[in-house]
Amino acid sequence: MNKKPPYYAVIFTSTHSEYTHGYQEMAEQMELLAKQQKGFLGMESARDRVGITISYWDSLDAIKKWKQHSSHLIAQQKGRQDWYNWYDVKICRVEHEYSFEKKDS
Amino acid sequence: MNKKPPYYAVIFTSTHSEYTHGYQEMAEQMELLAKQQKGFLGMESARDRVGITISYWDSLDAIKKWKQHSSHLIAQQKGRQDWYNWYDVKICRVEHEYSFEKKDS
Repeated sequence: MNKKPPYYAVIFTSTHSEYTHGYQEMAEQMELLAKQQKGFLGMESARDRVGITISYWDSLDAIKKWKQHSSHLIAQQKGRQDWYNWYDVKICRVEHEYSFEKKDS
Repeated sequence: MNKKPPYYAVIFTSTHSEYTHGYQEMAEQMELLAKQQKGFLGMESARDRVGITISYWDSLDAIKKWKQHSSHLIAQQKGRQDWYNWYDVKICRVEHEYSFEKKDS
Protein backbone atom coordinates (compact mmCIF):
# COMPACT_ATOMS: atom_id res chain seq x y z
CA MET A 1 0.00 0.00 0.00
CA ASN A 2 1.21 3.53 -0.66
CA LYS A 3 0.11 4.58 2.81
CA LYS A 4 1.89 3.36 5.93
CA PRO A 5 -0.25 1.66 8.61
CA PRO A 6 -2.50 2.31 10.34
CA TYR A 7 -5.18 2.32 7.66
CA TYR A 8 -8.33 0.26 7.16
CA ALA A 9 -9.35 -2.80 5.14
CA VAL A 10 -12.77 -4.18 4.25
CA ILE A 11 -12.58 -7.93 3.62
CA PHE A 12 -15.56 -9.03 1.52
CA THR A 13 -15.87 -12.82 1.12
CA SER A 14 -18.70 -14.31 -0.94
CA THR A 15 -20.17 -17.30 -2.71
CA HIS A 16 -22.25 -16.73 -5.83
CA SER A 17 -25.69 -18.01 -6.69
CA GLU A 18 -26.27 -19.54 -10.14
CA TYR A 19 -27.75 -16.26 -11.36
CA THR A 20 -24.84 -14.18 -12.66
CA HIS A 21 -26.57 -11.93 -15.22
CA GLY A 22 -25.36 -8.36 -14.82
CA TYR A 23 -22.86 -9.18 -12.09
CA GLN A 24 -19.63 -8.54 -14.00
CA GLU A 25 -20.76 -5.14 -15.31
CA MET A 26 -21.86 -4.08 -11.84
CA ALA A 27 -18.62 -5.29 -10.25
CA GLU A 28 -16.61 -3.24 -12.74
CA GLN A 29 -18.81 -0.16 -12.22
CA MET A 30 -18.45 -0.42 -8.45
CA GLU A 31 -14.68 -0.77 -8.69
CA LEU A 32 -14.47 2.37 -10.84
CA LEU A 33 -16.76 4.23 -8.46
CA ALA A 34 -14.90 3.09 -5.34
CA LYS A 35 -11.65 4.40 -6.83
CA GLN A 36 -13.22 7.86 -7.09
CA GLN A 37 -14.18 8.02 -3.41
CA LYS A 38 -12.34 10.16 -0.91
CA GLY A 39 -10.08 8.05 1.28
CA PHE A 40 -9.88 5.08 -1.14
CA LEU A 41 -6.39 3.54 -1.09
CA GLY A 42 -6.60 0.36 -3.18
CA MET A 43 -8.41 -2.88 -4.00
CA GLU A 44 -7.41 -6.53 -4.47
CA SER A 45 -9.64 -9.30 -5.72
CA ALA A 46 -9.48 -13.03 -6.50
CA ARG A 47 -12.13 -15.66 -7.14
CA ASP A 48 -12.21 -19.42 -7.42
CA ARG A 49 -14.56 -21.42 -5.17
CA VAL A 50 -15.08 -18.33 -3.07
CA GLY A 51 -14.55 -14.72 -3.99
CA ILE A 52 -12.40 -12.42 -1.88
CA THR A 53 -12.34 -8.68 -2.46
CA ILE A 54 -10.38 -6.42 -0.14
CA SER A 55 -10.66 -2.66 -0.35
CA TYR A 56 -8.38 -0.32 1.57
CA TRP A 57 -9.35 3.04 3.06
CA ASP A 58 -7.72 5.76 5.07
CA SER A 59 -10.46 5.99 7.72
CA LEU A 60 -13.57 4.31 9.10
CA ASP A 61 -15.50 7.36 7.99
CA ALA A 62 -14.49 6.79 4.34
CA ILE A 63 -15.71 3.16 4.63
CA LYS A 64 -19.02 4.28 6.11
CA LYS A 65 -19.58 6.85 3.36
CA TRP A 66 -18.81 4.27 0.64
CA LYS A 67 -21.21 1.78 2.23
CA GLN A 68 -23.94 4.43 2.10
CA HIS A 69 -23.19 5.75 -1.41
CA SER A 70 -26.48 5.71 -3.33
CA SER A 71 -25.19 3.70 -6.32
CA HIS A 72 -23.43 1.28 -4.00
CA LEU A 73 -26.64 0.79 -1.99
CA ILE A 74 -28.40 -0.27 -5.20
CA ALA A 75 -25.56 -2.69 -6.00
CA GLN A 76 -25.70 -4.17 -2.48
CA GLN A 77 -29.48 -4.66 -2.77
CA LYS A 78 -29.10 -6.34 -6.16
CA GLY A 79 -26.29 -8.51 -4.75
CA ARG A 80 -28.47 -9.81 -1.93
CA GLN A 81 -31.43 -10.32 -4.24
CA ASP A 82 -29.64 -12.00 -7.15
CA TRP A 83 -25.93 -12.71 -7.10
CA TYR A 84 -24.82 -13.86 -3.68
CA ASN A 85 -25.80 -16.94 -1.73
CA TRP A 86 -23.68 -15.77 1.11
CA TYR A 87 -21.29 -13.00 2.00
CA ASP A 88 -19.31 -11.82 4.96
CA VAL A 89 -17.85 -8.38 5.60
CA LYS A 90 -15.03 -7.69 8.02
CA ILE A 91 -13.88 -4.17 8.88
CA CYS A 92 -10.22 -4.23 9.91
CA ARG A 93 -7.53 -1.88 11.07
CA VAL A 94 -4.25 -2.68 9.27
CA GLU A 95 -1.58 -2.38 11.93
CA HIS A 96 1.56 -3.68 10.24
CA GLU A 97 2.66 -4.47 6.69
CA TYR A 98 5.72 -5.94 4.98
CA SER A 99 6.44 -7.23 1.53
CA PHE A 100 8.84 -9.21 -0.63
CA GLU A 101 9.84 -8.69 -4.25
CA LYS A 102 12.09 -11.04 -6.16
CA LYS A 103 15.24 -9.43 -7.49
CA ASP A 104 16.22 -10.36 -11.04
CA SER A 105 19.14 -12.74 -10.74
CA MET B 1 -16.01 -16.33 12.10
CA ASN B 2 -16.98 -18.28 15.21
CA LYS B 3 -15.31 -15.68 17.39
CA LYS B 4 -16.73 -12.19 17.80
CA PRO B 5 -14.41 -9.24 17.05
CA PRO B 6 -11.89 -8.16 18.02
CA TYR B 7 -9.63 -10.84 16.57
CA TYR B 8 -6.77 -10.70 14.05
CA ALA B 9 -6.33 -11.34 10.33
CA VAL B 10 -3.21 -11.88 8.23
CA ILE B 11 -3.83 -10.86 4.62
CA PHE B 12 -1.30 -12.57 2.35
CA THR B 13 -1.39 -11.38 -1.27
CA SER B 14 0.98 -12.87 -3.85
CA THR B 15 1.90 -13.36 -7.47
CA HIS B 16 3.55 -16.61 -8.51
CA SER B 17 6.72 -17.17 -10.49
CA GLU B 18 6.66 -19.68 -13.36
CA TYR B 19 8.25 -22.30 -11.13
CA THR B 20 5.39 -24.06 -9.34
CA HIS B 21 6.92 -27.49 -8.59
CA GLY B 22 6.12 -28.51 -5.02
CA TYR B 23 3.96 -25.49 -4.31
CA GLN B 24 0.56 -27.19 -4.05
CA GLU B 25 1.80 -29.88 -1.65
CA MET B 26 3.48 -27.28 0.55
CA ALA B 27 0.40 -25.04 0.56
CA GLU B 28 -1.74 -27.98 1.69
CA GLN B 29 0.77 -28.98 4.37
CA MET B 30 0.94 -25.43 5.70
CA GLU B 31 -2.84 -25.16 5.83
CA LEU B 32 -3.07 -28.42 7.83
CA LEU B 33 -0.31 -27.26 10.15
CA ALA B 34 -1.80 -23.78 10.65
CA LYS B 35 -5.09 -25.38 11.69
CA GLN B 36 -3.28 -27.21 14.49
CA GLN B 37 -1.79 -24.03 15.97
CA LYS B 38 -3.06 -22.49 19.18
CA GLY B 39 -5.16 -19.43 18.47
CA PHE B 40 -5.98 -20.36 14.85
CA LEU B 41 -9.56 -19.34 13.96
CA GLY B 42 -9.91 -19.94 10.22
CA MET B 43 -8.54 -19.47 6.71
CA GLU B 44 -9.92 -18.29 3.36
CA SER B 45 -8.16 -18.47 0.03
CA ALA B 46 -8.77 -17.59 -3.64
CA ARG B 47 -6.48 -17.30 -6.64
CA ASP B 48 -6.81 -16.01 -10.18
CA ARG B 49 -4.33 -13.34 -11.40
CA VAL B 50 -3.26 -12.78 -7.82
CA GLY B 51 -3.58 -15.09 -4.86
CA ILE B 52 -5.19 -13.94 -1.63
CA THR B 53 -4.99 -16.03 1.53
CA ILE B 54 -6.39 -14.68 4.77
CA SER B 55 -5.81 -16.48 8.06
CA TYR B 56 -7.58 -15.51 11.27
CA TRP B 57 -6.12 -15.66 14.77
CA ASP B 58 -7.19 -14.84 18.29
CA SER B 59 -4.09 -12.79 19.18
CA LEU B 60 -0.98 -11.11 17.77
CA ASP B 61 1.05 -13.58 19.81
CA ALA B 62 -0.51 -16.55 17.96
CA ILE B 63 0.40 -14.88 14.63
CA LYS B 64 3.98 -14.30 15.78
CA LYS B 65 4.37 -17.94 16.89
CA TRP B 66 2.99 -19.22 13.58
CA LYS B 67 5.36 -16.94 11.63
CA GLN B 68 8.27 -18.43 13.58
CA HIS B 69 7.16 -22.09 13.46
CA SER B 70 10.13 -24.10 12.18
CA SER B 71 8.26 -25.85 9.33
CA HIS B 72 6.62 -22.59 8.34
CA LEU B 73 10.04 -20.86 8.25
CA ILE B 74 11.22 -23.48 5.74
CA ALA B 75 8.09 -22.93 3.63
CA GLN B 76 8.59 -19.14 3.71
CA GLN B 77 12.21 -19.54 2.60
CA LYS B 78 11.20 -21.87 -0.23
CA GLY B 79 8.45 -19.43 -1.23
CA ARG B 80 10.87 -16.53 -1.57
CA GLN B 81 13.41 -18.67 -3.40
CA ASP B 82 11.08 -20.45 -5.83
CA TRP B 83 7.37 -19.77 -5.93
CA TYR B 84 6.67 -16.10 -5.43
CA ASN B 85 7.62 -13.13 -7.56
CA TRP B 86 6.04 -10.86 -5.05
CA TYR B 87 4.07 -11.00 -1.84
CA ASP B 88 2.65 -8.62 0.70
CA VAL B 89 1.61 -9.36 4.27
CA LYS B 90 -0.77 -7.21 6.28
CA ILE B 91 -1.47 -7.80 9.96
CA CYS B 92 -4.93 -6.51 10.85
CA ARG B 93 -7.21 -6.20 13.82
CA VAL B 94 -10.77 -7.20 12.83
CA GLU B 95 -13.01 -4.68 14.55
CA HIS B 96 -16.46 -5.37 13.15
CA GLU B 97 -18.11 -8.15 11.14
CA TYR B 98 -21.50 -8.79 9.55
CA SER B 99 -22.80 -11.32 7.10
CA PHE B 100 -25.67 -12.22 4.79
CA GLU B 101 -27.10 -15.61 3.93
CA LYS B 102 -29.83 -16.15 1.36
CA LYS B 103 -33.02 -17.68 2.70
CA ASP B 104 -34.55 -20.40 0.54
CA SER B 105 -37.64 -18.85 -1.04
